[in-house]
Amino acid sequence: MSTIDSLPLRDELRGKSPYGAPQLDVPVRLNTNENPYPLPEELVERIAERVTEAARRLNRYPDRDAVELRTELARYLTRTAGHRVGHAQVWAANGSNEVIQQLLQTFGGPGRTALGFEPSYSMHALISRGTGTGWLSGPRNADFTIDVEAAERAIAEHRPDVVFVCSPNNPTGTAVDEATVLRLYAAAQAARPEYGALVVVDEAYGEFSHHPSLLPLIEGRPTLVLSRTMSKAFGAAGLRLGYLAADPAVVDAVQLVRLPYHLSAVTQATALAALEHTDTLLGYVEQLKAERDRLVTGLRAAGCEVTPSDANFVQFGRFADSHEAWQALLAHGVLVRDNGVPGWLRVTAGTPEENDAFLEAVRAVTKDLKEKSER
Amino acid sequence: MSTIDSLPLRDELRGKSPYGAPQLDVPVRLNTNENPYPLPEELVERIAERVTEAARRLNRYPDRDAVELRTELARYLTRTAGHRVGHAQVWAANGSNEVIQQLLQTFGGPGRTALGFEPSYSMHALISRGTGTGWLSGPRNADFTIDVEAAERAIAEHRPDVVFVCSPNNPTGTAVDEATVLRLYAAAQAARPEYGALVVVDEAYGEFSHHPSLLPLIEGRPTLVLSRTMSKAFGAAGLRLGYLAADPAVVDAVQLVRLPYHLSAVTQATALAALEHTDTLLGYVEQLKAERDRLVTGLRAAGCEVTPSDANFVQFGRFADSHEAWQALLAHGVLVRDNGVPGWLRVTAGTPEENDAFLEAVRAVTKDLKEKSER
Repeated sequence: MSTIDSLPLRDELRGKSPYGAPQLDVPVRLNTNENPYPLPEELVERIAERVTEAARRLNRYPDRDAVELRTELARYLTRTAGHRVGHAQVWAANGSNEVIQQLLQTFGGPGRTALGFEPSYSMHALISRGTGTGWLSGPRNADFTIDVEAAERAIAEHRPDVVFVCSPNNPTGTAVDEATVLRLYAAAQAARPEYGALVVVDEAYGEFSHHPSLLPLIEGRPTLVLSRTMSKAFGAAGLRLGYLAADPAVVDAVQLVRLPYHLSAVTQATALAALEHTDTLLGYVEQLKAERDRLVTGLRAAGCEVTPSDANFVQFGRFADSHEAWQALLAHGVLVRDNGVPGWLRVTAGTPEENDAFLEAVRAVTKDLKEKSER
Repeated sequence: MSTIDSLPLRDELRGKSPYGAPQLDVPVRLNTNENPYPLPEELVERIAERVTEAARRLNRYPDRDAVELRTELARYLTRTAGHRVGHAQVWAANGSNEVIQQLLQTFGGPGRTALGFEPSYSMHALISRGTGTGWLSGPRNADFTIDVEAAERAIAEHRPDVVFVCSPNNPTGTAVDEATVLRLYAAAQAARPEYGALVVVDEAYGEFSHHPSLLPLIEGRPTLVLSRTMSKAFGAAGLRLGYLAADPAVVDAVQLVRLPYHLSAVTQATALAALEHTDTLLGYVEQLKAERDRLVTGLRAAGCEVTPSDANFVQFGRFADSHEAWQALLAHGVLVRDNGVPGWLRVTAGTPEENDAFLEAVRAVTKDLKEKSER
């Protein structure tokens, strides 16, 4: 047996660790922004039906272009996101991570650069690096909103090929307003007058927002891409189904790099079943939004600072040592995320019972930490 | 609406078309090396059971490391491929295409080079390009075996970081013997004395071979990787499940580039169900091997040249104009593959009825072409 270091791996991978939150076995797991509600039993049955049908043809390759699935995703967006799209404007892949990887293989890559606004979804930077795309982080204000004027200057100076805007932003929960996106888009076009730059609006948590989707902005903006996932609002993190909406030319372009038959027949069947149950699932989203708002109130009542949230999670703090606070919550049986934003932690909105347990743990921990700091 | 050319896509993608065989609706489709036998009904039921179970937890992320699945794949290899491996030596992804992509992201990439022996599985070259890896083709003999001495010289001269050996080779059906792989491995190590080069033996069609698997060669060779798929022998092209076996350090290394949670819970559940039915599925493999041999005999009887085949397909020719012959077979309702090897076509072993229809069409077409050439 060898070690990793004795292998001919790429230099930039040496000494690195795989990405991923610890999967610890604790009573209350609120660390990965999963939807706490299992799929309703009638949907589980429908999945079994659809998968059975797909399994009878499993010896054949799946629909390479996933047209039925893209049609239903387009219908869902048209109905819920305020803008009419068809399957030609929608593309799907194994999780929004794969969507982002395909976008970067097409529009980023060696000799090109992507820019995001950290702290943000860390996979934007990691997939950029994984595809050989340079990575730059633009500025945020102290309240975690994007500093638009500084961002415009950064775009003009660095001329990125791809700009990531995460709204609502993970891990802060911050929504980005339409005006900001339009200014960033204009700056990105101005910096790259020949073809423009790609602006990717990552709306993985879009359904949980107080604000409408930014989907209508794709109209007339051929390099504005909206990325989405079924992991959160559809309660289907285990399904790995991400998608994008954009000008049909973008959908054509990613097909130059997608691995052929990338989306399995069982994935397509399961996603189609879930899309039949959209109304029920969006009902859970409403409950989670209410719980999220309750977490904000409860955290503030416990003396925490809270970043306003449009997602299914809340960033709270501020702790002199956020890892110590993370550990103290874990000792109370509650796993939250230490995202590496100094002073802050992130908690996912769980079931009412889980959120009660979390808030109780927070009250105990903040009291302990306060007493300790006063000693 | 824009066009692809107006977008800021990478220069090397301009003017390219997406990879993929035409999916035409004809009576006899023998163009994509699919297994013609649908999964047995008891396996379809078991898939539904396993997926139902997975769907009840679909709101949670899947097992990121797919340990149960890798354990069962290792058990399958141990039982059928002549060498004991455990889950630490096995890695799985969405199709062997994704396995290959992860290997190239880890061991290839910008500034590095991969070498294969064309004609071969064209995705080796395409995924190399997609990951920024340079691509070189080494020599084959006129009978499509690898020219070992010329290959050794090519490896010594070009010092590739990754060498692809496809056995049985797609689209020719040619098996590569152990001695050849060992010589290529030795040449690849000698050319890159510091860390060695990665040698990837692609055994996508391994179960159909007259020869045993090359799996035992991974022992003591930390940069020899075997890649496999469930698409062919398991009759599960729709599932998209590829895997590799190698030194545990290689398995650790690809985890540095894999997208987190890349394998969905439904994919893992379906693959596990299929692995419970290995014996039945390998029974179909035996039938297909007999049909493949019958195709060879029938093609020769019809006056065709045939490349000896260890796969579930047969390369046949030689045609003055292989595209014309492809078209003529299509006119008889039979879709085969025009792989771009001048003078040759490739036919997948189908059911006995499909193979009868194919052989009948071949007899008619060769007769027509002969008459035409004599006019």
